[in-house]
Amino acid sequence: MSGDNRTVQVCLEPAVLQLTLNRPECGNAMNLAMVAELRQALKSVRDDRRCRAIVIRGRGDHFCTGGDIKEMALAGGRAANGDGEAAYEQLNRAYGQLLVELNQAPQFTLVLTHGGVLGGGLGLVCASDLTIAQKNSQLGMPETRLGIPPAQIAPFVVDRIGLTRARSLALLARRVDACAALALGLVQQVADDDADLTRQSNQILAELARCAPEATAQTKALLLNAGHLSRPQLLDLGARQFASAVCGNEGQEGTRAFTQKRRPGWADETMEVR
Amino acid sequence: MSGDNRTVQVCLEPAVLQLTLNRPECGNAMNLAMVAELRQALKSVRDDRRCRAIVIRGRGDHFCTGGDIKEMALAGGRAANGDGEAAYEQLNRAYGQLLVELNQAPQFTLVLTHGGVLGGGLGLVCASDLTIAQKNSQLGMPETRLGIPPAQIAPFVVDRIGLTRARSLALLARRVDACAALALGLVQQVADDDADLTRQSNQILAELARCAPEATAQTKALLLNAGHLSRPQLLDLGARQFASAVCGNEGQEGTRAFTQKRRPGWADETMEVR
Amino acid sequence: MSGDNRTVQVCLEPAVLQLTLNRPECGNAMNLAMVAELRQALKSVRDDRRCRAIVIRGRGDHFCTGGDIKEMALAGGRAANGDGEAAYEQLNRAYGQLLVELNQAPQFTLVLTHGGVLGGGLGLVCASDLTIAQKNSQLGMPETRLGIPPAQIAPFVVDRIGLTRARSLALLARRVDACAALALGLVQQVADDDADLTRQSNQILAELARCAPEATAQTKALLLNAGHLSRPQLLDLGARQFASAVCGNEGQEGTRAFTQKRRPGWADETMEVR
Repeated sequence: MSGDNRTVQVCLEPAVLQLTLNRPECGNAMNLAMVAELRQALKSVRDDRRCRAIVIRGRGDHFCTGGDIKEMALAGGRAANGDGEAAYEQLNRAYGQLLVELNQAPQFTLVLTHGGVLGGGLGLVCASDLTIAQKNSQLGMPETRLGIPPAQIAPFVVDRIGLTRARSLALLARRVDACAALALGLVQQVADDDADLTRQSNQILAELARCAPEATAQTKALLLNAGHLSRPQLLDLGARQFASAVCGNEGQEGTRAFTQKRRPGWADETMEVR
Repeated sequence: MSGDNRTVQVCLEPAVLQLTLNRPECGNAMNLAMVAELRQALKSVRDDRRCRAIVIRGRGDHFCTGGDIKEMALAGGRAANGDGEAAYEQLNRAYGQLLVELNQAPQFTLVLTHGGVLGGGLGLVCASDLTIAQKNSQLGMPETRLGIPPAQIAPFVVDRIGLTRARSLALLARRVDACAALALGLVQQVADDDADLTRQSNQILAELARCAPEATAQTKALLLNAGHLSRPQLLDLGARQFASAVCGNEGQEGTRAFTQKRRPGWADETMEVR
Repeated sequence: MSGDNRTVQVCLEPAVLQLTLNRPECGNAMNLAMVAELRQALKSVRDDRRCRAIVIRGRGDHFCTGGDIKEMALAGGRAANGDGEAAYEQLNRAYGQLLVELNQAPQFTLVLTHGGVLGGGLGLVCASDLTIAQKNSQLGMPETRLGIPPAQIAPFVVDRIGLTRARSLALLARRVDACAALALGLVQQVADDDADLTRQSNQILAELARCAPEATAQTKALLLNAGHLSRPQLLDLGARQFASAVCGNEGQEGTRAFTQKRRPGWADETMEVR
């Protein structure tokens, strides 16, 4: 079911989950429905190790121009009744939970941007494993110019580019092009056009195909825990996972394939960006 | 009261607090009086949202060449009486508290350097939101060559440039010029001369003028909390602040100005470096 | 005792501890004996402030090509008896403890690489104060291609190059050359050949000779604690160490030498890479 009347087009291949933001008429502005559909899509593959990668793009002229201000204004109407502020809080927190779940997805996550990549759109970039930006991308955090804080994305921007660079970007509400975003570390690669974007993405997926899915999921969790668990806790956990992996199916197949100079079984999966 | 006989010249405009280190006869070496006057100046605007930026510079040939070794030697004389070590500890910790307060100032903080930017001077740089260095700046951490640790500035240097780069800079007591400091991430922009420094500063202040003061203060606090609060705590806090901002004066004015294609009220403030 | 039949050649000079990985017949693959001998060598100088630097290199064509897969396979044979997994866990954790101890060594640690610097070899790089890579170095994390997570080195890679860059490097099992490693921040300098490597190393040691040994050890501990202690705890600790250093032998000699325009006593130590 690829659901063209939904806010997100979902296509599972099955090694790659392709997600396309689908509100081109409003620059793919993030609303409550889009947050819910993205979270549902991520959840549907969480325990599926056949799904190895998640690719997120946007339909139309922009990747995602931020939160849906019109929908916010409607919710703001309810504020007069005294419960509007609670509605805003819930909406904002749900978006933050999407970022947490995208950041921690066991699959490799690849974001492909073009056009506007603002506010909530930049949050998706900062929670991905790797982002490739088309040259026409404009990335930024305009929130404080609107009188509001970039409340949910702030910590993910700090994770992405460090505190120092996050200060200038967020506090001056700056907008940067793809090359400046590469220099800042917001994105990892820049593509000339849509065809180049697809070509570079498929190179990434070919690299990923050679890596074992369960080992990838464990490695990603270890990297994300590095700033949160104490070092001894982290090393103890790592050692248990290492031992279990070496004695498990992937470790056995991986070391056998290595000594037999052949590709391991998991590397035969076809993965490409459609 | 701009107090020329003080260790710091203070001038509130009122949108910009201009602070000028004023001990040119000794390279603006940081002593206990200067620490106290800087802390007092920051405190005087802490709850003043009309004050949007704090700019720190140095009079004479150097921005700040570090702690005042002569004054330390005098304090060292009291060490013979058995309470000198306690005096040093207090002096050093008071300087660290200045860095904490500068780092967390609700205003945007801009440091403008030239000449020597050593030890305690480098600490001010590392606790700022953005530093512009004149080409003739020399930045460094000479402490271990003097047999002492850069005790209070070490964590701020790690925050600024990351652990890896901080190791080389601190453990080899290196001194770098403005361009090398830019590459390291110690400073964010380099200026050719004093006029260029002023020009670049005023561009930054013009960017800042378009951002809402309260949203800026909240955003800065969220960025600084990213490494200290747990992710759920931080996102819960952010969502409450977001909701309150959207329904508050700044959020209402900001979204109205956006839809009416005009500058918001707060953007009319005049801000410039004198 | 320089022990040529050991897995690590150890030579204490006494200002520099020179360690040479000595299993050239298998690319200096890290096994349990090598882990134990490295830990023993670090321990032997832990409380020795005459030893100012630790230099680690590899004999033969490679610095260190990772964990010893053959020895792992032998240990794997014991897995059939049900206790193999525990043996792997212990081996892996012991290697992680080596990284902790190298990272926290009170001396300045310098790693000099050439050829393969993979897996466990990259861990040593990431736990050093500074690494110089010969141009022919190949650095990488091939683990997930073998079906196992880079369990112990993951947090040290995040410390070294940040979360964002660690994601691409680890999750795509990438291998990079010396220049790419410099751009990533894995290594800090690149050398043309072995002679250039020695020349650059000796420049570093000459810089280090001017820094006080105890102040260096304290500074390193403060930098490493920056991400782990709370800011007030860290600043309190720093102030106590500062006061004690200023009033101690190194601080007194350092400030005296400074005012007398001579080199401090500790700077007369001869240090060079053999």
